Amino acid sequence: MQSKRLPRAVREQQMLDAAVRVFSERGFHAANMDEIAELSGVSKPMVYAYHGTKEELFLSCLRRESERLMERILAASDATLPPDEQLWRGIKGFFEFVGAHRDGWSVLHRQARSLEPFAGELAGMRKALVQLIAHRLDVALQKEGRQVRPDDLTSMALSLVGASESLADWLSAHPDEDPARTATRLMNAVWMGAGQLLHGHTWKPPLDERGNHQAAA
Amino acid sequence: MQSKRLPRAVREQQMLDAAVRVFSERGFHAANMDEIAELSGVSKPMVYAYHGTKEELFLSCLRRESERLMERILAASDATLPPDEQLWRGIKGFFEFVGAHRDGWSVLHRQARSLEPFAGELAGMRKALVQLIAHRLDVALQKEGRQVRPDDLTSMALSLVGASESLADWLSAHPDEDPARTATRLMNAVWMGAGQLLHGHTWKPPLDERGNHQAAA
Repeated sequence: MQSKRLPRAVREQQMLDAAVRVFSERGFHAANMDEIAELSGVSKPMVYAYHGTKEELFLSCLRRESERLMERILAASDATLPPDEQLWRGIKGFFEFVGAHRDGWSVLHRQARSLEPFAGELAGMRKALVQLIAHRLDVALQKEGRQVRPDDLTSMALSLVGASESLADWLSAHPDEDPARTATRLMNAVWMGAGQLLHGHTWKPPLDERGNHQAAA
Repeated sequence: MQSKRLPRAVREQQMLDAAVRVFSERGFHAANMDEIAELSGVSKPMVYAYHGTKEELFLSCLRRESERLMERILAASDATLPPDEQLWRGIKGFFEFVGAHRDGWSVLHRQARSLEPFAGELAGMRKALVQLIAHRLDVALQKEGRQVRPDDLTSMALSLVGASESLADWLSAHPDEDPARTATRLMNAVWMGAGQLLHGHTWKPPLDERGNHQAAA
């Protein structure tokens, strides 16, 4: 069999790919290791040898998906950009990740949130994201000569993360929705605010090289 | 015993009060019916007779807390007020509820969200709140002569609800935080938006009869 010749790291990732798919389709409790083994083309004992128990395997999936998501957000939102573009790109990267890895989002967030043993792990990752956003916001405010109390920064970041999660669930349930469009919706909610929207002021994504709005890509 | 003479409805509510407290302290799985019965001053068979199984009892708690929360929001946010005041009062009512019923919030939201059988029930209640907000926003926009697509209204309402939940969890973990202050933080995030905040434009609660800002009450 071809899979026998694959390097360890590649095989490990293949098992995680299979596991994310099975956890996503069946849910954590109903998922079984036989199906995960079959889908990754290895024996069940090998899955246990590489990834431990079903709980440990789920946790590995959760960590991998979460690291990928954070890397995506960090790569997208260059700290030297103006603050609205940082936010726009970070949010767009986030929703593009969710749109492209609907299975991953399901494992990462929706299931981890609803399973007590993993909720703590998820809370830690969420905290890291809140701190990143609060820090970026603080830097942007300081550039404007403003100082805001740490609690105000944290609560703004928490609002942003809560709103993002809420829209990510919606995006994952709407296959026809363009992730860049969801990102624009969120920018209007949290960057412009409902008060601005009410008066017809909306946020528009920056133009790309061809003069098109990026959300229309 | 005094409790024997209480009308049925009062006794029912006392059992729910006890159940909310026990579920909140122990978590759904560890909570036991003996403790709930003892705390409400009735026998365990009577708890079962009134409220059914532990799952049914939890569901009754969830529904009661949720109805109270919706009533509170509706009573606070009169639809004839200007839109920012509607939102401010609705949000303030919400956070005051969370602040005053930390146990209730725990049962209503944090636990229901993390227990698969109840997540559907919670999703239904959340949807009702999203629809209410989207409708109010639509009315406000129409008064301004604007029309916004239903998906834009829904996504704004989802952002608002997601941000509120995120800050409610934070509020329930910070006993010293004034709920009206949390409400002001959220108004700044979702009514003014981060872009306004960056330029020093913040939202201030309306003045009360004595000329004080309501958040400082």
